[in-house]
Formats: sequence, C-alpha cells, structure tokens
Amino acid sequence: MSLGIGDDAALLEPTPGHQLVVASDTLVEGVHFPSSASPQQVASRALCVNLSDMAAMGAVPRWFTLALTLPSEKANADWLSGFSAGLAKVASQYSVALVGGDTTSGPLTITLTLLGEVPQGEGLTRAGAAPGDAVFVTGTLGDCAAALNIILRKNSILGMSDRLLQRFYCPQPQIQAGLTLRPVASACIDISDGLVADLGHLCKASGVTAAIQAQLLPIAEDVRNFANFSDNFSALDWALTGGDDYQLCFTVAPESLSIVDDWIEQGQLQATRIGVLSAGDKSIDPVTVVDKNNKILIIEKAGYNHFGH
Amino acid sequence: MSLGIGDDAALLEPTPGHQLVVASDTLVEGVHFPSSASPQQVASRALCVNLSDMAAMGAVPRWFTLALTLPSEKANADWLSGFSAGLAKVASQYSVALVGGDTTSGPLTITLTLLGEVPQGEGLTRAGAAPGDAVFVTGTLGDCAAALNIILRKNSILGMSDRLLQRFYCPQPQIQAGLTLRPVASACIDISDGLVADLGHLCKASGVTAAIQAQLLPIAEDVRNFANFSDNFSALDWALTGGDDYQLCFTVAPESLSIVDDWIEQGQLQATRIGVLSAGDKSIDPVTVVDKNNKILIIEKAGYNHFGH
Repeated sequence: MSLGIGDDAALLEPTPGHQLVVASDTLVEGVHFPSSASPQQVASRALCVNLSDMAAMGAVPRWFTLALTLPSEKANADWLSGFSAGLAKVASQYSVALVGGDTTSGPLTITLTLLGEVPQGEGLTRAGAAPGDAVFVTGTLGDCAAALNIILRKNSILGMSDRLLQRFYCPQPQIQAGLTLRPVASACIDISDGLVADLGHLCKASGVTAAIQAQLLPIAEDVRNFANFSDNFSALDWALTGGDDYQLCFTVAPESLSIVDDWIEQGQLQATRIGVLSAGDKSIDPVTVVDKNNKILIIEKAGYNHFGH
Repeated sequence: MSLGIGDDAALLEPTPGHQLVVASDTLVEGVHFPSSASPQQVASRALCVNLSDMAAMGAVPRWFTLALTLPSEKANADWLSGFSAGLAKVASQYSVALVGGDTTSGPLTITLTLLGEVPQGEGLTRAGAAPGDAVFVTGTLGDCAAALNIILRKNSILGMSDRLLQRFYCPQPQIQAGLTLRPVASACIDISDGLVADLGHLCKASGVTAAIQAQLLPIAEDVRNFANFSDNFSALDWALTGGDDYQLCFTVAPESLSIVDDWIEQGQLQATRIGVLSAGDKSIDPVTVVDKNNKILIIEKAGYNHFGH
C-alpha cells in the first residue's frame, strides 16, 4: 500500500495481471446482530461476512474500507477499542489491511467494502455450472440458525451454545477453500441466506436446476442435539434455510470430480457432496430436496429469523 | 468491467501502470442531510461528495459500490426510483459505474465507496506542500453554509436560494480541476469541513503553516447579499468555516505559479490565489487569517451546522 488512512483517499498498488474483486456489505444493529452483541463480536462478524464474498469468488482479500455510523452512547473509548480489537484480530488472521473509511454519527450501522484480487479470468462466479455437475458444500450447515435460536431465546441448554455462538459472531470465511477450488469449481456462491436460496441463485445464474439429497447434508452433532430440544424447529430446516453460515456451495464438472474427492479424502478440503444439477426448467423451483427414497420434501422456511427492533 | 451487480462481488479490470484510489463516505439522515430532502437530492449529494475525494487525489473516478440502509416507509418504488434516477444522473455525468453493493433495512444511511485510478506515483496528496508555496481554492466558498442556513431556517429571502440549494444537493466535484492540477499542485485537499479546518489538515500533513488573506477569498455575490439578511452570520465566517463546499484547496510551488496563473487567466481553471505557506511551527495554529493590513482575524465557528434529529 502506498498511502492509507489520513488522506482524502487510499492509494493502492494492484497486482499486474489480476482483476479487482469488490464487494460491500452492511450490518445494521437489531437487523443483522442483536443489541446485546459486544463491539468485538460486531466487528468480527462484519469483517468475516464481507470476507466470505471474497472466498466465493476465489479471490485473495487485500484491503478494506470501514464506514462506521455510531450512536452517541457508543462513541466512547471502551466501545471503540473493543471494536478495533475485534477488527484487527480478523484483519490480521486474513492478511487484509484497513485503508480508509468514514466515521459518522447515527444509528449503529457498519458497512465494509472489501477489495481482493484474482488472476485475470480465473475468478469463480455463479454462472458456470452445467447439467451433470455435482453440488458440494464446505463445512457444516445450520450452525448459525441454531446459534440465532440460542440468541433469540437466551437459551443455552446443556452448554451446547459456545461453539455455535462462536460460529455466529466469527463465521469462518472460506478463503482457503475458495483458492483451492478456483481451478476446478464450475460455479460457486457463499451461503448467507440459506442453502436453498443461495443455491437457487447459482442455478438461475447458470440456467440449471439442482436436486439435493437431504440425508447427505452435513449437520453437526450439536446442532442435531440442540434441535431435539427446540420446539418447532428441525436441524434439517436449519441446514436448508438457515442463513449466516457463510460456507461455500460449489459445483464440479464430472471430469474434475476425482480431484475434489481426493482433496476431501486427504483432508485438504472439508466439503461434502450433496446433490447433482440437471438441465434448467423455468417452470419448477430451481432447487429440489429429496429424501433417500427420492421423495420430494417440503421446505419449511421457519429456520431463518431477523432480530426485532 | 467484467462482471457487475448480481454475483458475490464485482470483477473489475484495473488499468495497467495505475494506482487504485479508494474512498468511502457515509451520509446519515438528519446528520448530513435533512429529512425533507428528496430521494434524488440524497442520491445526488451522496455521489457528489464521494466523487470529491477522487478530485482531491487527481484521480479519474471509475466505479462505485452503494450500501443503502432504508427504513420501511422509504422502501417503496417511488422513493427507490427517485433515488436511482438521482444516482444515475450523476454517475453518467462523471462516467462512473455502479458495480455492486448491499441494501438493508434500518435508519436511512448511505455509504458509497468510490474507486478511481491515477498513473503510478502521480496522485495528489496532502503532504507535498513546502514553505513559499502559494495557496489556491477552486470556485467560490461559503455557498453551502449559506444554503444550510436557508434549509435550517426554511428561509428563501428574495429568491436567492435556488442556486445555493443546488450547490448543497449537487456540489460539483472538481474532477477536471484535479486532473488539470495533477502535474503542478504540490498538495491538494477537498473542502468538506471548511477552508480553515481542511487547509489545516493539509498544513499538518505537509509540516507547514498557512497565512490566508481574508479579502482575497472568493465569495459569490448572492452569498454576500444573503449574509446581509441573516443575523449572526457573516459571509466571511461562511467562507472560512462553512462545510460542504467540496471545492479543492491546493498549493503550488513558486516555479509552477506562472502555469497556474495562465490557466486561470485563460479560463481553463476557475481558481483564486488566497495566501502563502510558511515553515511549520507546532506552537501556533496551522492556519492564520489576516485582513488587508495583515491584522490577524479571529475566526468564528458559527457558520457550520449539523441537522438536528
């Protein structure tokens, strides 16, 4: 970086032969995180969520700007030092530099703009998938829907909440997975609104449909257990429709499948094959979920919640 | 642009041999614009203010992202089409492309992140000024402080408000002036917080002090007239401390002065020489304002207001 915070703008040195990858995301108090969140948690979540967009493109994140709108009761040294510490920790972990921004007075709102790079023409998009490609997801699904349930109910039965709360406030952007997948994935998206919704976006952009096998979905043991204690929710709903997991959903053409299977087997990539793509048909929903007898399941959208004001 | 709105991030093509210039600015309703502002006015002002940072760096603006947080009463087709029209008009005028962003629910807040380019090593900064350099400003000063006064008082005496309101909602980012000045200015800043405050930032970054001649300040006739009708304000206060003008304040070394003077005389650059820099001295304020007898003037900060909630 040539010139960072303190001038009218930052002056940065793009890497020759690379495309620039740009994404902005906003978090609003009471909508994207509860008022009870600590400043560290808010900062950490804001940066992780934005880094996830870089992961989905197979980009190396490099720089970010921060636009922080703060109410007067939070414009104090305690809150700001907590926020800065949370931001610095994640920034250091993912080697991204804060290069500028703006601080304003108003209701708590955080907008980050991430800048990353990919070698010319190698970025992952939503639009490259084809019929016959396999569908994968990284990590496990439904963790954050379960965490939301804990936060909203102030419920932490049997000490099951620690890992899940950590997953909510520090979702792990799949930067390394994105870089690994860049040469082999035909399309990729990050799961911010739930698997069915986001895979639906990928299908529409690629002109295909997807059939997902419910019994193949990677769901953590604690999420299954926690769901058993929660009325009205099922771990499967959380995995299919729960937002905020920030795992990657990606597709792989048949000729590249053995590479990905090898990576998974050797532990180089934590991912699970969950379904397959077919030719597009605009008359049906782009994503179908079937049980092991290929019976189509009805998806309940109950898993995803916003925070009330 | 290779890929714009609709994927996880935008994929852009930086110009080889150029540095990337990045700036984010946030506008909050009730703080940076009044609740009575139309969606066109809000959009126009947001983009113009952000473009001004590009002008101050001597950069060519190329792309921007928009993070728009909207309350439910504004999340309707009328408001959004007005906002889009305002944004599109300015974007087209300055040839910048909207490449992505985020729309969220919450109190009205707009964050734009502008991306521009300058040839390697040629960007204008605040830090290059030296003792003996002359100080200039583009355009006229105090227009927006006068406009604010009109808006806050709902006062439009003698039809003087139209040009000034236009200046407030459509400040004209001095992109062309920034490009013209790139080879000759030793330092540059845009005037967002008032001449004295922003020239002070430039002085601190360059390690110099500035003496400004009050009688040389370019103040429009309608601003002088309007000040005569307004109790408690003077046009000079507005010119020195009024925010939001988004003119450029720049410095020029003695050997380049004749070039700049020629441009001004030939109408290629609308700017006024207002003072001179001296060696830095940390014991005094970086900016001194003197009258035509070199008597130091006391600066009243009354000219600048925020909107009450």
